[in-house]
Amino acid sequence: MANGGLRLYSYWRSSAAYRVRIALNLKGLDVQQVPVHLVRDGGEQHAPGFRRVNPQGLVPTLQHGQRLIRQSMAIIEYLDETFPDEPLLPATARERARVRGLSQVIACDMHPLGNLRVLQYLEREFKATPEQREAWIRHWLALGFEAIEQLLADNPSTGSFCEGDAPTMADCLLVPQLYNARRFGLDLAPYPTVRRVEGNALGLEAFRAAAPEAQPDGPPPG
Amino acid sequence: MANGGLRLYSYWRSSAAYRVRIALNLKGLDVQQVPVHLVRDGGEQHAPGFRRVNPQGLVPTLQHGQRLIRQSMAIIEYLDETFPDEPLLPATARERARVRGLSQVIACDMHPLGNLRVLQYLEREFKATPEQREAWIRHWLALGFEAIEQLLADNPSTGSFCEGDAPTMADCLLVPQLYNARRFGLDLAPYPTVRRVEGNALGLEAFRAAAPEAQPDGPPPG
Repeated sequence: MANGGLRLYSYWRSSAAYRVRIALNLKGLDVQQVPVHLVRDGGEQHAPGFRRVNPQGLVPTLQHGQRLIRQSMAIIEYLDETFPDEPLLPATARERARVRGLSQVIACDMHPLGNLRVLQYLEREFKATPEQREAWIRHWLALGFEAIEQLLADNPSTGSFCEGDAPTMADCLLVPQLYNARRFGLDLAPYPTVRRVEGNALGLEAFRAAAPEAQPDGPPPG
Repeated sequence: MANGGLRLYSYWRSSAAYRVRIALNLKGLDVQQVPVHLVRDGGEQHAPGFRRVNPQGLVPTLQHGQRLIRQSMAIIEYLDETFPDEPLLPATARERARVRGLSQVIACDMHPLGNLRVLQYLEREFKATPEQREAWIRHWLALGFEAIEQLLADNPSTGSFCEGDAPTMADCLLVPQLYNARRFGLDLAPYPTVRRVEGNALGLEAFRAAAPEAQPDGPPPG
């Protein structure tokens, strides 16, 4: 779809970039991906050129024409307001609050604690072993998924997706967080409603095509 | 203002609850505060009764009639949509994205790393000393404020407040994070634009009346 020129600064394994890739796909928006390798050469996100794009040195960043939009939830809401077909936020204030609240459990209370720079700090300053770092990640993920499971299972607003029967921003955040949880060996058996919603999402090509392994900068298939 | 019955589950020193108190004050909404003491008796947020209000065991939670809204940014956007006078999100998609992006630097990348439960984990599992825990907090706060300073100083959209000349959600998040930063001894000299905006905000009674020390469950004046 013609969109005035969208570029996404992304990294295949960044779960925050993965969220935005799902949103773009759900809206059928073409985007030029600009890979930013977070590990190679000490991390391309720290290069002065990229710091002008994103002063935090984080992906994703969306460029729309000359405009730069940062932070994944802000990007998704911007896309939703700018390209309103296939809405990612529901119609009422109550439903929107629920979608934003679920999204923020993930974006504020789960994801940031497992971010690369946080793990690097734990290793450097607290001499945390790989096992301790993975236990740390799983601890925060489990707390978050317990809450999300309860919020989904106990609420009649939950449908095939987190809110109703169409994907919203909350699903754009949930699926990458589950990918991340598997990577770190979290047992997902205690979260049946979460897994049911994930299964429905992965039935859609928009979610599958956004997966880390499907990206141009991802690992070679093998 | 008549509002259908608003209750805020809050703790005087929680910077996430402080954000919502500012938003309520800016909109002139009366609210009944329900204090949840995060330290006493092992933390009232862990009590089964409160877990039904908020499965994460976190404050704030807003109750509007029978409806429960969780996560501070979701609460502020809900208030803005439900009580549109004195808007806290600006008029255009570009400006809203900027306000949300600035808010999310704080809510996703700064605040969660200094949360009480995170500090408790560092102490328990990594034997982090009080000095190490405070250095940890200051590290993440400094990274965040560096980015925010640049995002504010480099953008002509910044006015008396983070976006333009009226307070928005971003200011509701910025002021509590600065309160928190002072509590942990962060040097704020490198962030002149941040401090200028804070000074303008604290010129408004809505911000001052939301301060931790002004709350019914806060410390006795002395």
